[in-house]
Amino acid sequence: MNPNPFFALEEYRARLSKTRERMYRQGVEVLLVTDPANINYLSGYDGWSFYVHQGLLVLMDREEPVWFGRMQDSNGARLTSWLSDDSIRGYQDHYVQSNLRHPMDFVSDLLRELGADKRRLGVETDNYYFSAQCHKSLAANLPQADILDANLLVNWVRLLKSPAEIGYMRKAARVVENVMRVAMDSINAGVREGDAAGEVVRAQLRGTSEYTGDYAAIMPIMPSGIRTSTAHLTWVDRAYEKGDLVLLELAGNVHRYHAPLSRTLIIGQPPAELADVAKAVIDGLNQVLGFIKPGVTGEEVEARWRKAISGTKVVKESRMGYAFGSNYPPDWGERTLSLRPGDKNVLAPSMAIHVMPGVWLDRFGFECSEPIVVTETGCECLVDYPRELAIK
Amino acid sequence: MNPNPFFALEEYRARLSKTRERMYRQGVEVLLVTDPANINYLSGYDGWSFYVHQGLLVLMDREEPVWFGRMQDSNGARLTSWLSDDSIRGYQDHYVQSNLRHPMDFVSDLLRELGADKRRLGVETDNYYFSAQCHKSLAANLPQADILDANLLVNWVRLLKSPAEIGYMRKAARVVENVMRVAMDSINAGVREGDAAGEVVRAQLRGTSEYTGDYAAIMPIMPSGIRTSTAHLTWVDRAYEKGDLVLLELAGNVHRYHAPLSRTLIIGQPPAELADVAKAVIDGLNQVLGFIKPGVTGEEVEARWRKAISGTKVVKESRMGYAFGSNYPPDWGERTLSLRPGDKNVLAPSMAIHVMPGVWLDRFGFECSEPIVVTETGCECLVDYPRELAIK
Repeated sequence: MNPNPFFALEEYRARLSKTRERMYRQGVEVLLVTDPANINYLSGYDGWSFYVHQGLLVLMDREEPVWFGRMQDSNGARLTSWLSDDSIRGYQDHYVQSNLRHPMDFVSDLLRELGADKRRLGVETDNYYFSAQCHKSLAANLPQADILDANLLVNWVRLLKSPAEIGYMRKAARVVENVMRVAMDSINAGVREGDAAGEVVRAQLRGTSEYTGDYAAIMPIMPSGIRTSTAHLTWVDRAYEKGDLVLLELAGNVHRYHAPLSRTLIIGQPPAELADVAKAVIDGLNQVLGFIKPGVTGEEVEARWRKAISGTKVVKESRMGYAFGSNYPPDWGERTLSLRPGDKNVLAPSMAIHVMPGVWLDRFGFECSEPIVVTETGCECLVDYPRELAIK
Repeated sequence: MNPNPFFALEEYRARLSKTRERMYRQGVEVLLVTDPANINYLSGYDGWSFYVHQGLLVLMDREEPVWFGRMQDSNGARLTSWLSDDSIRGYQDHYVQSNLRHPMDFVSDLLRELGADKRRLGVETDNYYFSAQCHKSLAANLPQADILDANLLVNWVRLLKSPAEIGYMRKAARVVENVMRVAMDSINAGVREGDAAGEVVRAQLRGTSEYTGDYAAIMPIMPSGIRTSTAHLTWVDRAYEKGDLVLLELAGNVHRYHAPLSRTLIIGQPPAELADVAKAVIDGLNQVLGFIKPGVTGEEVEARWRKAISGTKVVKESRMGYAFGSNYPPDWGERTLSLRPGDKNVLAPSMAIHVMPGVWLDRFGFECSEPIVVTETGCECLVDYPRELAIK
């Protein structure tokens, strides 16, 4: 048991309690949690062990969730989670990446031991860490269980952040302000893209003079030139040249909590078309930030953006924001609320949203985003960084 | 179409041809590839877009595989893969992380368009990027298709590396030698762990004076003190102290190809028990490296290790090595050959294996590993770095 988890024990208990309320409403008696961010949220467990199958079992009638994972990671669960030894179950190494047995076979045995093998079992059906074979193993081994879709159940609990969580996000915001400054300073004609990327990640991990940073769930997205016409490229082995446009989608991270931030830089004078797009996007972003407040829906926010850019050269088909918070690779988004048509979720105080109107056109792109927390009357921008196309 | 992909077009065609041979042997008529490393291996596509559903469709009677992914990543496929525009299909944003429709609904439509919706469809059942819901969507939308388990089909093709692939791994080895030196230099009493981690990742991305590096599929594993008793912890917000033991499991990466390397450092003089364990592990590693040659099986290599450590204080239940190569988060291992009891795979020239006898005991751990390539007569150690417990 970690004597100093990142949150008070009462906070973990409150999270479990909200999770069990949702389980009850959805008819789930036992929840199998495999999303590493959800595991961390409920137990505090933190390690780069999610490349093997692991998880938590949350029961209605057992106070502590039960952690399971590879035996060699059990000490990691003892050192990082608030769970007692009796709630930490390591499986033998012959379950790892084997075609003879699957770790979910072990989980079925564990459910039997816990007397929970005939209950309604909720699973995270569309999670990266719950494969088709996980489902198949459970269905085969637990003929009397009813396996239910509990995808995103814990993610929806995570949507409302506690003051302590927002505190970590504010700390991450200090980190990303520095990271973005380092990026802007490092990128110059003649500098290799990989060297600039190295400075960026170094700044992420160094954090501030008061605290260091953790790794972000996404490596720096920092394409240049024609590569800015698409959304998720990193860097390549070349030196920047005069005239290069560079997108920067970066984050600070503290105790797994992110502050994502996007900006755009050009080495030289911007073409008129880019300047027009930049102006339209930043104006639209400012209008959206002025519009966000409790009571409006995700789709109403997007509609405000759509209205702002109508008549400009900006075309954007993709969503313009999403809930974020604590996470592990491959994504820092929480996959719940999105700012897009059809999203009926009502914004409420303490939701954290990355307002991200990224635009990727045929020949170039432009990004300028803000991570915000919804307040009682509007929103708080976590980051203080100029909203402009940076020109070198 | 990328005019300069990382490999010659003939090499991509040869990979596809070997993939189709395996498909034929396994009775698979259409293969749905969702593992980002497999996508990259067959098409060259490279982007941090794997957090949304994407993939390749490999047909028997269509030369080019068909890439599908989010619309905003289509330009990324045009810029990084060797595929022609006709083989790149973006889906609309309303498929993204929605509870109304699933990207695999789009894939079913695409299969119908390709006339391949009634064939035997192989899917990567235990991949991070093939969730239970992917399977469910395909099964519901393709009632006339026969969905088969083709897990690791492409991974097994990847087991034998080409000269060009080994070339990138040698380049990655130059990077990791430097990364390990930087780690050893940076870790001192009074230095914050996050600051040292920052130097490590900076060195990974800076690469060498001739070429820069790419991101590794795993962030630096570098626990200290009691945290060395487990396998996959990163760093925490504290300063190193005199007497600290630090595990370092790091990698260099060039064009997605890894060279992983583990070493152990102590700030001060090692306790006798640690010195004994270090000696036993390094002796055992040396014996194993002398034993590896074409014709021996994975389990025979492990048995050689087990024999070497018998009578010492070293206890190790977990596998002591695995195939590696190109990869994306969360793992640089290829999940095929493992050095462990029961592994009947026969080693052959051009296989790449991370020989990784990591030991995690109750109070401390020790790691010393070597990435190797099997040669005609034995093995080539890719990395040149002293095999010793480093003492500061």
